[in-house]
Amino acid sequence: MEVKLLKQRAKSQAKEAVLQAKEYGQTIKDTAKYMHEKKLCLETVPTTDCHVVLTFPTKTDIATLSWIEGILKENLPDLTVHKRLHPYTNMTGWYLTASFDSLMRGAEAMGISKAVKEEYGGGLMEFSTAEKVMFQGIEDEDTFFISQERQSILHYLLQNIRATQSEAFEKFKLLEGQPIFPKLLSKRIISALLPLHDKEALKKLEKSWVHAPLSRQPLDDIAHYFGIKVSIYFAYLGHYTKWLIFPAVLGLFVTFYSSNATIQDWSFIFFTIFNIIWASLFLETWKRRSAELAFHWGTLDVKHELLEDPRPMYYGIPQVSPVSGRMEPFYPAWKRNLFRYFVTVPVILLCMCTTFLIAFGIFELQEWVNEQISEGFYPKPLAYIPKFILAITTIISETIYKKIAVWLNNKENYRLQSSYENHLIAKLIFVQFINHFMSVTYVAFYLQDFGRLKATIATLFITKHVIGNITETVIPYIKEKLKVYRLAFKVAKHEVKEARKKEGAAEGSTEGSREGVSEGSPEGVSEGTQEQTDEADGASKKYTISQAEVESKMERYEDTFNDFLEMFIQFGYVTLFSSAFPLAAFWALVNNVIEIRSDAFKLCTNKQRPFGQHVQNIGSWQYAMEVIGMLGVSVNCALLGISGQLQDVFPMYTAVGIFLIVALLEHIILALKLGISIAIPDTPYWVQTELAKLEYKRRQALKKMEQETRDNIHKSIASSPVEELSTEAGISTEAPKEE
Amino acid sequence: MEVKLLKQRAKSQAKEAVLQAKEYGQTIKDTAKYMHEKKLCLETVPTTDCHVVLTFPTKTDIATLSWIEGILKENLPDLTVHKRLHPYTNMTGWYLTASFDSLMRGAEAMGISKAVKEEYGGGLMEFSTAEKVMFQGIEDEDTFFISQERQSILHYLLQNIRATQSEAFEKFKLLEGQPIFPKLLSKRIISALLPLHDKEALKKLEKSWVHAPLSRQPLDDIAHYFGIKVSIYFAYLGHYTKWLIFPAVLGLFVTFYSSNATIQDWSFIFFTIFNIIWASLFLETWKRRSAELAFHWGTLDVKHELLEDPRPMYYGIPQVSPVSGRMEPFYPAWKRNLFRYFVTVPVILLCMCTTFLIAFGIFELQEWVNEQISEGFYPKPLAYIPKFILAITTIISETIYKKIAVWLNNKENYRLQSSYENHLIAKLIFVQFINHFMSVTYVAFYLQDFGRLKATIATLFITKHVIGNITETVIPYIKEKLKVYRLAFKVAKHEVKEARKKEGAAEGSTEGSREGVSEGSPEGVSEGTQEQTDEADGASKKYTISQAEVESKMERYEDTFNDFLEMFIQFGYVTLFSSAFPLAAFWALVNNVIEIRSDAFKLCTNKQRPFGQHVQNIGSWQYAMEVIGMLGVSVNCALLGISGQLQDVFPMYTAVGIFLIVALLEHIILALKLGISIAIPDTPYWVQTELAKLEYKRRQALKKMEQETRDNIHKSIASSPVEELSTEAGISTEAPKEE
Repeated sequence: MEVKLLKQRAKSQAKEAVLQAKEYGQTIKDTAKYMHEKKLCLETVPTTDCHVVLTFPTKTDIATLSWIEGILKENLPDLTVHKRLHPYTNMTGWYLTASFDSLMRGAEAMGISKAVKEEYGGGLMEFSTAEKVMFQGIEDEDTFFISQERQSILHYLLQNIRATQSEAFEKFKLLEGQPIFPKLLSKRIISALLPLHDKEALKKLEKSWVHAPLSRQPLDDIAHYFGIKVSIYFAYLGHYTKWLIFPAVLGLFVTFYSSNATIQDWSFIFFTIFNIIWASLFLETWKRRSAELAFHWGTLDVKHELLEDPRPMYYGIPQVSPVSGRMEPFYPAWKRNLFRYFVTVPVILLCMCTTFLIAFGIFELQEWVNEQISEGFYPKPLAYIPKFILAITTIISETIYKKIAVWLNNKENYRLQSSYENHLIAKLIFVQFINHFMSVTYVAFYLQDFGRLKATIATLFITKHVIGNITETVIPYIKEKLKVYRLAFKVAKHEVKEARKKEGAAEGSTEGSREGVSEGSPEGVSEGTQEQTDEADGASKKYTISQAEVESKMERYEDTFNDFLEMFIQFGYVTLFSSAFPLAAFWALVNNVIEIRSDAFKLCTNKQRPFGQHVQNIGSWQYAMEVIGMLGVSVNCALLGISGQLQDVFPMYTAVGIFLIVALLEHIILALKLGISIAIPDTPYWVQTELAKLEYKRRQALKKMEQETRDNIHKSIASSPVEELSTEAGISTEAPKEE
Repeated sequence: MEVKLLKQRAKSQAKEAVLQAKEYGQTIKDTAKYMHEKKLCLETVPTTDCHVVLTFPTKTDIATLSWIEGILKENLPDLTVHKRLHPYTNMTGWYLTASFDSLMRGAEAMGISKAVKEEYGGGLMEFSTAEKVMFQGIEDEDTFFISQERQSILHYLLQNIRATQSEAFEKFKLLEGQPIFPKLLSKRIISALLPLHDKEALKKLEKSWVHAPLSRQPLDDIAHYFGIKVSIYFAYLGHYTKWLIFPAVLGLFVTFYSSNATIQDWSFIFFTIFNIIWASLFLETWKRRSAELAFHWGTLDVKHELLEDPRPMYYGIPQVSPVSGRMEPFYPAWKRNLFRYFVTVPVILLCMCTTFLIAFGIFELQEWVNEQISEGFYPKPLAYIPKFILAITTIISETIYKKIAVWLNNKENYRLQSSYENHLIAKLIFVQFINHFMSVTYVAFYLQDFGRLKATIATLFITKHVIGNITETVIPYIKEKLKVYRLAFKVAKHEVKEARKKEGAAEGSTEGSREGVSEGSPEGVSEGTQEQTDEADGASKKYTISQAEVESKMERYEDTFNDFLEMFIQFGYVTLFSSAFPLAAFWALVNNVIEIRSDAFKLCTNKQRPFGQHVQNIGSWQYAMEVIGMLGVSVNCALLGISGQLQDVFPMYTAVGIFLIVALLEHIILALKLGISIAIPDTPYWVQTELAKLEYKRRQALKKMEQETRDNIHKSIASSPVEELSTEAGISTEAPKEE
């Protein structure tokens, strides 16, 4: 009985499955047919009147949404919020638009520099609402702030909404003064907060940048569209690539010009020294170029740390700022230092040692396995096991270490976003450095096998770059295309369904209401926003999806970190091991010519638009590369000593003699490097002059204001003496004495 | 006949000589008697109502004097000039006093910081005539500027008198725009330009500083009296001496605690590393202390180079300054750089090589002579000949090199006094360094005789300091006393003569007219200014000489250069060779405790008062000592390698192994030093906060002023558009592009 029952059940299930499959097949067929018939190509409809999109996960309840809406209304009352349901991703999207007044307020708080009208002196100046008449183009509220600025201002305003008192919403707790949106994002209550691409500007940029590999990069346009941080990365990449030409040409020459052994040995030594000096010159000239760009974009004239707003996640006891007189959190420097030296430093050292030891262990294992295989004890494929283990441990250790580094950095609680980022970069670099250079170092200094070193570097260097470019560009591109195709398929399928429904039923209610604020539940997918073109019933009807929905599912462009890391590692190969592999610069050059455009392509097509960020320079990367430059001296000198090239050139010296030559060479080059870095000023003279001009104007203004204050006070003193001023602004005039 | 005549002539000559001698003897007797009778003690009468004294050589003609007077009247019309004849030195002295208005003008141009009244916010601010009401004590014109300020302001005003057109006075030629007084001084047309001591303030300072060796130095009083440059030298000396306590104690411990050889070897190695780190910490803490002092004295907040007035000797094509809009000379940076790299650097290298080779040659000679003596070929005293040659060549080479360095530095034509001085110091240090450390280096690294090295350092170090203190303090003191006594004798002799004359003749005309402007020729010594006290005919009549006359013959206090050089060389011994002579720090400590007071004594009693100079820090000396600190790492590591202490501690290693240990040690310590210098901020947090406050005020002021300008321009635009502004102040907004 039971068996029969089961059989029957199985049969009916199978039938159902077949039916389902049939239906599914039919849907696919229908959809495909439909897509073909209607010549459907999925078109995204630009979302134009929106600065920032917020998306919520599929199952967000109404209570949460209205709680967040309340926060927005309370803090940014003149914010326009359009609510949409994204039908194909099943998410709620809020399209936020700030008023011009809010934007001006935010721009002033952020210290955004804008061009001043010629009649007011020209040049760039920090925006200030009180003086708005001075700025170029202020008359047109729609174009005064470019889209990137509007987006990052609104982002700034959102990031700075803080809890006014300690409160809790369901399981979500907020402390007084804690910024709300970063916390909502980290708790996944908001799934994304993104600015949208400006399709038209993007198209122009693609034309002048991605599709013009031989022309100069339109750095200004990049800065306008993606913000200064991204633009300065590409400027760096361009500068670096240009400079690579020198060692690339010389490297080719040294490698392939080998008339006799002695000349080759000498030319290798010469090339090594050249390369070290080249690295110094490159870094110094980049500093100058960077200062020029920062000046041009209005970010060179950095304020004093205490004059900038603290980053949202900065915490501390609220105090009256001694500088501006406003309330703001204060975190004592000694606490940070205590943590830094007694927690961060030991933890990082421990991580480095662990990484080092694990890698070393695996290399030893590899050597042992190789030996066993060569003696015939083990089958050949076994040689891949240590390699596999290494790959796995590298990924795991990088992931764990990144978490540790972020945690440490949060605990150190930096006041400014820029110092936060720079310290995080500094922390992350250490382990990345070991992971990337450990194997080469092992071969070079532990095995001291110079032939194998060359081979290792060549394979590592070239494969890394080829693989890097593929994983970075090609794969995401394909993924993105697939995603879009999936969405297109979904759209079409939906259409077919609707069409079927239509056949049966009367009029549907499929039209999305673009301007209406629909408060419906996120489940109501049918109330979505797929739009019909204006010629609604035309033959080649195009089926569309809103730009916001597509982009909210795109990958985020995390940061310039990964791009810089790649360049940093490459710079490491070019400078650290140039004496072993002089062709590194050549391959780097070849790679980078492609890299510039592939990175550009990635940013323009595969990624969410990033929020524009204001930076003064490339921050910690500059120091990191300078350290690499210094290390390069020691490593190359040591390699020269090990390689035997010096012995070939100076056959009359003993081991100790060669050692002395290496040590002497190292010290001379280090001194030379120091000299170069002192001799080349970091800021070009013309930039200095411009800064002096600004400073002069400031000083004159100060004098004038103080005179006015004096006049005013004088008037008030004439009637009654003022005492309040004396306490607050007094500078200690206590005598410092010393034995 | 002829013989007789000659005899007679000889006789009469002898007679005359005898007579003269007798007369002379009589005069001496009389004078001595007179001095005794009248209880004469030479007293200098303070010259109070004078800021600066100009003296002219004995035979200056009236034409020159009146030409110079014309220049003064034309450029500083409200300057008061009292002319005196200094009877005992046979010189003309002009006593210059500036009006309060001139002083205010000069103070503003120099950017002197003065205390602001509490009701205007307190703290220090650059003086400005327009806002003078804000400053503390402005009501009393006599005390608002302290004597040191009045002197340096008048000095500044004099230095900045420039020829309005090319002119020639007798053989003296002036180009347009050339500063007149520096040229007059260098051509010896003016023999001295000096400020006078303020006897009362000096007495107080001596009491609290020179005669109080165990109390703290009254740095504020020193800064007030001698200016900030001198005070910052003594602050440095104090800070350095305090820090010397650590290595002094440890050095004593290491030297005299020798329970067993291994422990001693280890403790030497430990001491060396300690010492290197100590040097880093000392230099970093000094930077912080220096920033505090500079902030306290109002010199930390330096202006941008282009905002400061150029130094008088700066030359170039007159141009409109792009910053302030005034006319000023302009000398292109590329010319300076060209000269620097293609003349200065080769010349200095050549000088260094020459110095090095000469010293090396003499050392080799010394070795050879010593050998010959020890083998009995030569007598012992011959060993002193190379020493003598070395002493002579050192003095000659230093003199020649100083001239070369000054010439090079003048040619490099720095715009600011501070950069001029810093570059001069940098140039002078090189050869001084070789001269001072050559012999030690020779013994350490050429002879590699560690025992002899210790002895050499000990003798050099100790004798140099003892001799240094004597030549610096005791000898000048005796010379000064002798000079005064000579003057006293002259006064008395003069008196006796006058008395004799009086006996014969009727009333003389010996009374000096203190207020009258006597235009008499400088030859008329009898019209001098020796003054009689008010009780002109009293019994214990005191004979006096004016303070100005005494001080005009005193030695000038050249600069802090020699004092700093001494400390620099000492710091070199303490850090460079600490592993060979750990007691260096102890002896340096002992020396410096004396040095502070003997330098103070020298300044207060033996020297002309220097003009107060405003400096921000110790300039090039800081860098020089940092370089010494770096060199210290390499030198000490090399010494550890040579000394054999490492071999004792690690007997299992070969020469190459020891070499590797040394190289590794060096790299680790260098990295540590770099870490320390990055980790310790150069400016203390509280100073940073105060600076931020100032910056905040400035930015607010700028905004306010720009708004006002805008309002004004707006008004004028309303009537007619303004076009002139646009061209001059426009900042290039051209797009920088890059491939």
